[in-house]
Amino acid sequence: VSLSRLNRIRAIDAGNYTMTVEAGCILADLQAAAAEVDRLLPLSLAAEGSCEIGGNISTNAGGTNVLRHGMARAQVLGLEAVLPDGALWDGLRGLRKDNTGYDLKQLFIGAEGTLGIVTAAVLKLEPRPRATATAWAAVAGPEAALALLTAAREASGDTVVAFEMESRRCVDFVTGNVPGVRDPFDGRYDWFVLIELSSPAADAPLGEIMERLLEASMDRGLVRDAVVAASEAQARNLWALREHVSEAQKPEGGSIKHDVSVPIDRVPEFIRRAGAAVEAVVPGARPVVFGHMGDGNVHYNVTQPLGMDRAAYLAQWERMADAIHDLVVAMGGSFSAEHGIGRLKRAALEKYRPPVELALMRRIKRALDPHDIMNPGKVI
Amino acid sequence: VSLSRLNRIRAIDAGNYTMTVEAGCILADLQAAAAEVDRLLPLSLAAEGSCEIGGNISTNAGGTNVLRHGMARAQVLGLEAVLPDGALWDGLRGLRKDNTGYDLKQLFIGAEGTLGIVTAAVLKLEPRPRATATAWAAVAGPEAALALLTAAREASGDTVVAFEMESRRCVDFVTGNVPGVRDPFDGRYDWFVLIELSSPAADAPLGEIMERLLEASMDRGLVRDAVVAASEAQARNLWALREHVSEAQKPEGGSIKHDVSVPIDRVPEFIRRAGAAVEAVVPGARPVVFGHMGDGNVHYNVTQPLGMDRAAYLAQWERMADAIHDLVVAMGGSFSAEHGIGRLKRAALEKYRPPVELALMRRIKRALDPHDIMNPGKVI
Repeated sequence: VSLSRLNRIRAIDAGNYTMTVEAGCILADLQAAAAEVDRLLPLSLAAEGSCEIGGNISTNAGGTNVLRHGMARAQVLGLEAVLPDGALWDGLRGLRKDNTGYDLKQLFIGAEGTLGIVTAAVLKLEPRPRATATAWAAVAGPEAALALLTAAREASGDTVVAFEMESRRCVDFVTGNVPGVRDPFDGRYDWFVLIELSSPAADAPLGEIMERLLEASMDRGLVRDAVVAASEAQARNLWALREHVSEAQKPEGGSIKHDVSVPIDRVPEFIRRAGAAVEAVVPGARPVVFGHMGDGNVHYNVTQPLGMDRAAYLAQWERMADAIHDLVVAMGGSFSAEHGIGRLKRAALEKYRPPVELALMRRIKRALDPHDIMNPGKVI
Repeated sequence: VSLSRLNRIRAIDAGNYTMTVEAGCILADLQAAAAEVDRLLPLSLAAEGSCEIGGNISTNAGGTNVLRHGMARAQVLGLEAVLPDGALWDGLRGLRKDNTGYDLKQLFIGAEGTLGIVTAAVLKLEPRPRATATAWAAVAGPEAALALLTAAREASGDTVVAFEMESRRCVDFVTGNVPGVRDPFDGRYDWFVLIELSSPAADAPLGEIMERLLEASMDRGLVRDAVVAASEAQARNLWALREHVSEAQKPEGGSIKHDVSVPIDRVPEFIRRAGAAVEAVVPGARPVVFGHMGDGNVHYNVTQPLGMDRAAYLAQWERMADAIHDLVVAMGGSFSAEHGIGRLKRAALEKYRPPVELALMRRIKRALDPHDIMNPGKVI
């Protein structure tokens, strides 16, 4: 089903901090339209230049602003959907508070089109940021990154919009394989974080706050070295170290990918235990650890060992994924943090979720789509 | 059903910014437990000294921090519930990101116990506030209050946690009927707002920011007079002007109450049109207009005309409520912003929601509770 021609912005209401948009609108176009009326649509992700908002809502998209603004779900105030029986449900209310019966829109958000087709939405907007500070820091390790996150939230008045972490191998791959991206440090460190602060107050002294935070964290031994971007161009260069990780893996051979989450303060333990699990499945495989530390969300990709046959490595996908997912679930985590279930992870859903939960999902599916015509074969 | 003996805090995890609590815990106790580990449980409402968190979740409670932190729904990461067939669903995950099938917890939040009984939850915590500024301002009118809200969000770096508005009559009733509460102004004004800024950064200059905001807003003609609390005691006195409104109505006779919401920027229009509607139903009735302006949520209470018989006035409840709710729905609003449906507003739900929406709710209810044993007669 393509909704690309349903691409009208029906209304932008700056005073109510909302916009009403059709499902086929491109996310980046909506961001631009919000900025024009001095507002921010916080949803932001790598594919924003091409992805459509209906898909973002149907998959409950995440991205880089979740720590401050939540997933797509948190940004939807109202919804319009076509139901399996052909009826159109108009729930396009732009209200912060509306306790009138079941909150039906929640059913369709993240349901991957299996309960109905989202055709339009009322999205919540925020004040437009006018001050930003971006820093790249080498940290003593994942535990230090965690302590830095808590310190950053407090010192900055909770203006942290992004707190991304990555391992040395990510930096090596990006600087080695992507033209024009360089390591800002002379020293060689093992773990890095990218921190971004943002405020709608033009005079918010975010640069000073960031510098004081990093200095204090150096004194505490959390941070080894750090650089604060002095311009937007420098900030873009720092972001390049994070944004190109996935692409930079390609020349290194096959990659087995996981999109997992654990409680934020268990990320260091997860990384340790996942490393051991990987080594047990495919000795020499190279974890490429990066992700949204502030959300406990790790994109735990594992590049093949040097010199191994690519196909032979990828044949281990299921064994590797089972090992990582078993670990995640044992740690109270999720085997699909922001990417959803689709067809690929249906078996994992069956394996890891209790029967009571699966039965509930099936009841909902049967109640709304008794003939199984909406995206059959997906999710449940 | 009483869950008061299910009152254990199962875990507090400061590093993950979460707490796992049983349904019978008193909200104020949970706030205190969070503060002990340097965290904030943002949910806050008048009944917090006695209400239980299971009820807060089942009714999707609102309160005074919604503008910054959202309703109860936004603060629930995981849920445990007893289902109509007696099964226990354990969805107690403390994750920011978990896209694994339908988000079942959303079904139980705000369902008023009609789909199952919430027995425990994982709640999201925030950094503890260390700086606060509270101001009381006389504004030129509801439109001016709206412009002030937008200016406050921008100037303060979106640290506005409360933005409450009330009319002259509220101040007269409170200062006249509640001992110890006084009007801070010598002049007589018609509309007032209470603004509170809050930040986890101890050195955040919120007092200065508030003063600059109010000065600039006086220059723009939005604010007539203002006072910034110089101490916690002064802040409490300002809050008393807002918190005692409902109680201060009692000596004035019967009150017909509404809990409605409209898009934030239509609040001024709502107040104007609602005043005319009230006058048409019961000439001389006295609107007591107060509420959470920042959420578009007005507690539109109407005190009886001076000298009218109380019972004769209250006999007009249905006619008055119909007039107000008709108006609200025509303006894209909600006839129950934070108080829910229960038994009282079932007829309104039937009247104002489209058949498609009611049918969807019934399908959900039938799918989860086919024998209608959970809180029968409520909601749907």
